[in-house]
Amino acid sequence: MVVKVYGPAYGSLKRVLVCLIEKEIEFETVPVDLLKGEQKGPEFLKLQPFGLTPLIQDGDYTLYESRAIIRYYAEKYKSQGTDLLGKTIEERGLVEQWLEVEADNYHPPIFNLVRQILLAPIMGIPFDQKLIQEDEEKLGKVLDIYEERLSKSKYLAGDFVSLADLSHLPFTQYLVNQMGKDYMIKDRKHVSAWWDDISSRPSWKKVLQLNLS
Amino acid sequence: MVVKVYGPAYGSLKRVLVCLIEKEIEFETVPVDLLKGEQKGPEFLKLQPFGLTPLIQDGDYTLYESRAIIRYYAEKYKSQGTDLLGKTIEERGLVEQWLEVEADNYHPPIFNLVRQILLAPIMGIPFDQKLIQEDEEKLGKVLDIYEERLSKSKYLAGDFVSLADLSHLPFTQYLVNQMGKDYMIKDRKHVSAWWDDISSRPSWKKVLQLNLS
Repeated sequence: MVVKVYGPAYGSLKRVLVCLIEKEIEFETVPVDLLKGEQKGPEFLKLQPFGLTPLIQDGDYTLYESRAIIRYYAEKYKSQGTDLLGKTIEERGLVEQWLEVEADNYHPPIFNLVRQILLAPIMGIPFDQKLIQEDEEKLGKVLDIYEERLSKSKYLAGDFVSLADLSHLPFTQYLVNQMGKDYMIKDRKHVSAWWDDISSRPSWKKVLQLNLS
Repeated sequence: MVVKVYGPAYGSLKRVLVCLIEKEIEFETVPVDLLKGEQKGPEFLKLQPFGLTPLIQDGDYTLYESRAIIRYYAEKYKSQGTDLLGKTIEERGLVEQWLEVEADNYHPPIFNLVRQILLAPIMGIPFDQKLIQEDEEKLGKVLDIYEERLSKSKYLAGDFVSLADLSHLPFTQYLVNQMGKDYMIKDRKHVSAWWDDISSRPSWKKVLQLNLS
């Protein structure tokens, strides 16, 4: 069964795709045009009542929220492809902890930076230098804690790559490339080595080469 | 081994405690005084580098982020106490989805309301009627979607109680009691029945009776 993944060529869609590739799961993407408001149309709202992407359909099973989708596939196909949950329940606990840190501490400031720097010009949102500076400071503090953590273990949850690491890929890619803020990563030795490691995984390179619309 | 739970007598600590009680796990609470800034002290930062509560210590295992802690115990003691993850991987997927909905859609507006209405007077934050109105509207829209969902299944993830439901308890309790906004729940028939059901569980009554400091 080919998994259908609905969403625009945007960060959280890529979070799902990189994990599907790591788990060797066949998928096809179904574009959703946010600028046309397709995610708020009646057909889409039947599948996702909040009008948010991405979502998957796998036979008659529908699931949304990118971090729920990646947990589901990592568990369902635990022994297929890369194991992304750790070997023990204690390791999985740490994967969950760092997935929550990504969602609660890392994502809000980096998302605001993407919104201010990349989306504001497209969407006509006024540019706010003060907000950008505040969010960059917040993200910097989070990265300082990552630097300390990654000086003790190769990946966030331990010495194994997991959902927690991969979940950082899409938005950090924007930071390093399109936003020209690669110094935030490069200036931190262990964060930089971690980024080089996870962003050079074949799964992520494949996501970046997909012709997503 | 008694689990030590560090945190103030506040919402996210209670999220952890209600789940530990459902799982029949023995615990003791260790108060952290946020007003004195204990969570930013060097001893606490060694355990939780972001300076946030709650966290648990279970022998030499330390874990933070409330929703990571409840997943860990629900999985570790799957067959002890109430099963809070569903019976199948597909059911667990839906538990994960609704846990994410709680964290991403429900929690931000309800947390802002708690902050504005209950914490602002204590912390000297200026009262902002416009913000309160906006957050109440946001929360109302989320509750409308819950109403539709709960007209089709008894609980959020299906016809079984799960982490996703219990995760709503602490902040909804503030809404219904201390904040005097119980109409937001009572005016929605299925949300109201769901709230009556989950808030009358012996585990939650026990949390409310704990003499937390």
